[in-house]
Amino acid sequence: MCRWMAYTGNPVPLETLLFKSKHNLIDQSMSSRSAETPTNGDGFGVGWYGAREIPGLFRSIRPAWNDFNLRDLSQQVDSRLFLAHVRATSMATVQETNCHPFRYGQWLFVHNGEIFGVEKMRRDLLLAIDAPLLENILGTTDSELMFHLALTFGLTQDPLGALARMVGFVERTGRQRGVEEAVWMTVGVSDGESIWAVRYASDGKAPTLYHSRDMDDLAHLQPELPALLGEQARAIVSEPIGKFPQAWSTVPQASSVHVKAGELELKPFAPLA
Amino acid sequence: MCRWMAYTGNPVPLETLLFKSKHNLIDQSMSSRSAETPTNGDGFGVGWYGAREIPGLFRSIRPAWNDFNLRDLSQQVDSRLFLAHVRATSMATVQETNCHPFRYGQWLFVHNGEIFGVEKMRRDLLLAIDAPLLENILGTTDSELMFHLALTFGLTQDPLGALARMVGFVERTGRQRGVEEAVWMTVGVSDGESIWAVRYASDGKAPTLYHSRDMDDLAHLQPELPALLGEQARAIVSEPIGKFPQAWSTVPQASSVHVKAGELELKPFAPLA
Amino acid sequence: MCRWMAYTGNPVPLETLLFKSKHNLIDQSMSSRSAETPTNGDGFGVGWYGAREIPGLFRSIRPAWNDFNLRDLSQQVDSRLFLAHVRATSMATVQETNCHPFRYGQWLFVHNGEIFGVEKMRRDLLLAIDAPLLENILGTTDSELMFHLALTFGLTQDPLGALARMVGFVERTGRQRGVEEAVWMTVGVSDGESIWAVRYASDGKAPTLYHSRDMDDLAHLQPELPALLGEQARAIVSEPIGKFPQAWSTVPQASSVHVKAGELELKPFAPLA
Amino acid sequence: MCRWMAYTGNPVPLETLLFKSKHNLIDQSMSSRSAETPTNGDGFGVGWYGAREIPGLFRSIRPAWNDFNLRDLSQQVDSRLFLAHVRATSMATVQETNCHPFRYGQWLFVHNGEIFGVEKMRRDLLLAIDAPLLENILGTTDSELMFHLALTFGLTQDPLGALARMVGFVERTGRQRGVEEAVWMTVGVSDGESIWAVRYASDGKAPTLYHSRDMDDLAHLQPELPALLGEQARAIVSEPIGKFPQAWSTVPQASSVHVKAGELELKPFAPLA
Repeated sequence: MCRWMAYTGNPVPLETLLFKSKHNLIDQSMSSRSAETPTNGDGFGVGWYGAREIPGLFRSIRPAWNDFNLRDLSQQVDSRLFLAHVRATSMATVQETNCHPFRYGQWLFVHNGEIFGVEKMRRDLLLAIDAPLLENILGTTDSELMFHLALTFGLTQDPLGALARMVGFVERTGRQRGVEEAVWMTVGVSDGESIWAVRYASDGKAPTLYHSRDMDDLAHLQPELPALLGEQARAIVSEPIGKFPQAWSTVPQASSVHVKAGELELKPFAPLA
Repeated sequence: MCRWMAYTGNPVPLETLLFKSKHNLIDQSMSSRSAETPTNGDGFGVGWYGAREIPGLFRSIRPAWNDFNLRDLSQQVDSRLFLAHVRATSMATVQETNCHPFRYGQWLFVHNGEIFGVEKMRRDLLLAIDAPLLENILGTTDSELMFHLALTFGLTQDPLGALARMVGFVERTGRQRGVEEAVWMTVGVSDGESIWAVRYASDGKAPTLYHSRDMDDLAHLQPELPALLGEQARAIVSEPIGKFPQAWSTVPQASSVHVKAGELELKPFAPLA
Repeated sequence: MCRWMAYTGNPVPLETLLFKSKHNLIDQSMSSRSAETPTNGDGFGVGWYGAREIPGLFRSIRPAWNDFNLRDLSQQVDSRLFLAHVRATSMATVQETNCHPFRYGQWLFVHNGEIFGVEKMRRDLLLAIDAPLLENILGTTDSELMFHLALTFGLTQDPLGALARMVGFVERTGRQRGVEEAVWMTVGVSDGESIWAVRYASDGKAPTLYHSRDMDDLAHLQPELPALLGEQARAIVSEPIGKFPQAWSTVPQASSVHVKAGELELKPFAPLA
Repeated sequence: MCRWMAYTGNPVPLETLLFKSKHNLIDQSMSSRSAETPTNGDGFGVGWYGAREIPGLFRSIRPAWNDFNLRDLSQQVDSRLFLAHVRATSMATVQETNCHPFRYGQWLFVHNGEIFGVEKMRRDLLLAIDAPLLENILGTTDSELMFHLALTFGLTQDPLGALARMVGFVERTGRQRGVEEAVWMTVGVSDGESIWAVRYASDGKAPTLYHSRDMDDLAHLQPELPALLGEQARAIVSEPIGKFPQAWSTVPQASSVHVKAGELELKPFAPLA
């Protein structure tokens, strides 16, 4: 398992959400409430949209909870849209290039989950990726393969369609290699304006995913929040953060979320052939 | 909290005890059964006596569970006496020089616990250390101060006496600075022949510590163990490892253990003025 | 040796000076023109004043030339005043806490040089530091001792006076311990408004130090510079960076520089008893 | 460029050759005499054959010159055959999995040089590698691709033949992708008994490579060497180490060396179709 979060709203210091809220992502790096792997200490990363077109990326193999550079960066940097990720792996090596988010131009990608039996289909997956994109693959995770497959299938034009084609391709390849239910994932994607997220598993049991509720609703719980984060603020998280569980709605299995300018659209998600 | 172990017996690959036994120290780095801090992911270290007079030292800021170099080293290196440590800190920085064991000549030192209020007495403690020894202090932990105080008080001549004087000095200094019960510890020390261990806390509630039972006893549980580790093998651990809880005896509060050539001596431990 | 630079002027991305100028500090990390140690690959650091009162700090044990996080940070972060440092050591351990700048509240400190014979006087120097300041010492360099001695001697009230008292104290302590000429240094200090720098050695042979000339002068060389960096921009560097050697003036031996709001004051520097 | 060395002979502590000889490999990490890149500070690795069938591997992203764990390991570990490598890269990321040696079962592989235009043919090269071997590729260097191509082409059965087929394949692929002279290399390979090394470049200008001369010859220079290293000791190096340049013979362009049990065989090397 891993844990991730995505935020869009008023520019705030990263630390507001990463460190200062209750049961925040950094806390989750040491003690996620997910029963499977409470520890997500195999590196972390944060990608943020700031004053440049290309998002910044800070990734490290250290546990997020003990990295002083992350603390400083999170205090100094304001962002109106960012993705953060804490990693737990029993497979691919712990190295910066295996930490999420992955980046391609102005695009960022985070993933929680696994391609089952990836060792049986790595060659097929690599082969399906546009050759020039291979130079952008710097690590060895299944996650990075999924991102570059989605890029090959048109992510920058049609994000949800490309993700659906990617999942369909991985499932089909899996079946050819004897893996019946290959995909188990939540993913988050951004171009700096929108956030797209998908919760999907071949067997219908994808990891948890939540989206924040309207600021109007939240204002009842915590009146200062809308002023701080803005009326249009929205967040998507693997696990609820903050004081109020009521602030979060479950993203259903086999669903996608699209957040832009305060609008949140929830739709069914199905793999495409 | 931290977790540590010390072993003396037949030369075995480090991995035999570090990786291959059940609930071993590397497992404890991710999920210690100690309720306080299940995660000991803030670096680790192993010090081993091999073919040289000076013990080898391998320390890293990575969690022990994801360090490939540790795996390789543990497969390749045989040792007849070694100390290993996994660290959890909320205080001193995560850096190699704050990882245990600490070394001075042929001596190794590991610690689990804390000097309460060390920030009020750091200057006093530094001042009490023999000036030439200051150059051997490379990090900023209370543990390293305790080791160098004990060296100042005669550790290489009279290990248990020096530890008793060190504890007495820290408690006395604490009281002068308004800290009533300053010491909370288990420590392990070796010169390559003996292992000395102490369990002590000013308030009588030191962290857990265990020593292995006679190989004769163990042979009833696991007949192949005496052949593998030798009749004289003994281990001291923060938490039991292996399949058989019956294999371990509790070291009582305020006690010391001395292991040499298969003999294990348990004695009361009290601070010296 | 080490190499450092300090900049104040228009807010610019750190990369403008760290990466994009000719023979910049990152180049100097691999191939300084200083004959003594062309390689400054033992870690680096950058401290920058941004939107918060406390400056940000990013330090790493990697060589500056191969750290991807530094590249990203330098692209994303704008600063109107920053200090950067690349390290070469044959003494203190390579760890983040031994990388410059050091920070205390809103103050930053960088150093190039050495206290000769520091091993003979470490205890004296530690003893002279205000006890509460000891908790801010996280590493083991002579540089960090110098910074905290200067803080003890009033750095935040009277920077140049405190530096003079610090140098006087170290030289006096050195002589007591048999070190005739103990200090060899250039240092840079900032509170976020001013930059103070000192070039001094007990034997009169301090490492090189340069300050930039007036923007009026520079406009003759490179007309776009004043518009980019601002009329009030000033820099202080161990080694000239950029295309035009004529852009730099030598800071004489035993001198201090004070830069604030475009004004640069050069004065003699002498240790104080 | 990178620098590497391979040794076979009497078991000696790694430090004898890595640290204690004049202009040793660790010195070369900071100041190689090769004009192109004096600094080889982008990580290092050592693979050694000890008491296990599988060789040990210690790789780190730190410069070899400042890694304390390498010093300790080199003092403690004896080996009768080892390969060591210091890395300089302007291309692939600095991460442990991009450090040499690479390992497959009992085989080790080091490389100095480059596949020119690898970005134009990465897909072709990946595609030519046996699918199950892809899971053993943990990094993103051209070197690791070369190793796994050679494994695909029979390295474990016929090392020099497989290397010749690998080079032929890369050159052919290069020409198809518009790269006329793709290969520039020295490589070293071992199975724990033999060392094979090749010096070859498509344009006839491969990096330097040297082999040691007979111990009889060396005994004239340094009488104690045969006793220390043994009559059968042989070494292959990118750059001469030690006090006596006369101790080394140049490996000619387009040649291979095979060392086993004190015998050294030099042969021409040509790519195979």
